[in-house]
Amino acid sequence: MPDLLFQNVAIVGVGLLGGSIGMAIRERGVAARVVGIGRRESSLQVALDRGAVDEVTMDLDEGVDEADLVVIATPVGKIVDAARAVAALRPDTLTTDVGSTKAEVVASLAELRFIGSHPMAGDHHTGCDHARPDLLEDRLVLITPLEQSEPEDVCRITDFWTALGASVHAMEPHEHDAIVAAVSQMPHLVAAALSVTTPSELVAYAGQGWRDATRIAAGDPELWLEIVTSNRANIIQQLAAVEHAIAEIRRALENGQDEALLEILQEAKQKRDAVGS
Amino acid sequence: MPDLLFQNVAIVGVGLLGGSIGMAIRERGVAARVVGIGRRESSLQVALDRGAVDEVTMDLDEGVDEADLVVIATPVGKIVDAARAVAALRPDTLTTDVGSTKAEVVASLAELRFIGSHPMAGDHHTGCDHARPDLLEDRLVLITPLEQSEPEDVCRITDFWTALGASVHAMEPHEHDAIVAAVSQMPHLVAAALSVTTPSELVAYAGQGWRDATRIAAGDPELWLEIVTSNRANIIQQLAAVEHAIAEIRRALENGQDEALLEILQEAKQKRDAVGS
Repeated sequence: MPDLLFQNVAIVGVGLLGGSIGMAIRERGVAARVVGIGRRESSLQVALDRGAVDEVTMDLDEGVDEADLVVIATPVGKIVDAARAVAALRPDTLTTDVGSTKAEVVASLAELRFIGSHPMAGDHHTGCDHARPDLLEDRLVLITPLEQSEPEDVCRITDFWTALGASVHAMEPHEHDAIVAAVSQMPHLVAAALSVTTPSELVAYAGQGWRDATRIAAGDPELWLEIVTSNRANIIQQLAAVEHAIAEIRRALENGQDEALLEILQEAKQKRDAVGS
Repeated sequence: MPDLLFQNVAIVGVGLLGGSIGMAIRERGVAARVVGIGRRESSLQVALDRGAVDEVTMDLDEGVDEADLVVIATPVGKIVDAARAVAALRPDTLTTDVGSTKAEVVASLAELRFIGSHPMAGDHHTGCDHARPDLLEDRLVLITPLEQSEPEDVCRITDFWTALGASVHAMEPHEHDAIVAAVSQMPHLVAAALSVTTPSELVAYAGQGWRDATRIAAGDPELWLEIVTSNRANIIQQLAAVEHAIAEIRRALENGQDEALLEILQEAKQKRDAVGS
């Protein structure tokens, strides 16, 4: 058995990501003990039943008591408060999160021993019921250390995600947010626009293309609202670009510019083909 | 063994759909013999090797000689010419197609013994290499008979697709085209817009959401150009609706109208949840 990376990992919020992280830690022997901390007894029970954690508690103080790593796996709007609450109890404990946007959160927590993380893994399902130990396998985790972050902490966070099967890229928080606006939040908003503009009486005719293109729009609206409003400027810019591209396609059709339309479809295919299925 | 629906089915064009139809006919014993007709010897050889057809020929006259059903499975831009060529040789043979738009094609062929069909099945892959006998299973086939179509022909076409495992809905060609603009062609164009607006250097960070939302944009650009230009008016109207929805999302973000944005995300989820995965 390899040396343990951590003795005690505390996970605040045992939903899809928190639960999956717990399962992966336990399955891969990354820590000796995983404690799940939550606000609802029913969710904590699911986490226990599914083997996502060794122990659960609704008491933050008790939960982080012996932790040498705390993972904040709450929705993005609650990360700052949760991390501050942890730091108030255990200021020396290394803490990370799993939020989808980073600039606001990381700036708010700059004075803490906190390294921001964003595992680019998920599902349109939420909740520990859908957690699985391989959710992070072969996925990318973007981390956003600051200049003042301790190199050793950056290494430990990198080793942590790597031990769970992910690849880790470090980048500046603002760069991170521009990237996820384009590759993560834009698909959601565009899928939502496609879904709402499909006449209700026609949804029954939806085939595989519509299903794939709108799948992400089934995500939790409140969670996504938190995500997109925490990355407003980048998303507004990217939405304008998508509007422009759709208008270009529409005008090409209106004006019979089939060659221009073909070029757009070719460029789209080329970019899509560069990525796996 | 059940009675055969047809003795000889000729399939003009043995790509993904033509090949899959041939495989399903043979596997389910729907006809005694399937002849594949094509223009390229290499494609015909693939169809033979994969068991999609019993025989192949590049000679249309020979291919349709004994056919009691001809399925035109060419790209949409070639259907009218192919159906006319078949009718010139065998005007009494029942003929159908698999095209994604119907109004133009059906109007052009109104004087022939032709019933338009649109199997709502496919793949972003093309070619008989990707054909499979279950491609039509549990899928919907929309057929667009005209007032003057013989009821017996409508029944035979309905029985044909049903025998291949599909459900059949009959509708008016213009109604068909309005539907597919919304549920089939719009996802492709919106996916294309999303793909082209994703900065090339960021595509490497694309996760499952981006992959799902853009998957259909990997389809063959020339085929899709034919499809969308044959359904121009409906698509222009639907594109304008999507542009409007995206602008609405952008303005809600710009003006801090989080409640309005939440409502859009909720409506999108509700519509998406009404459809299977």
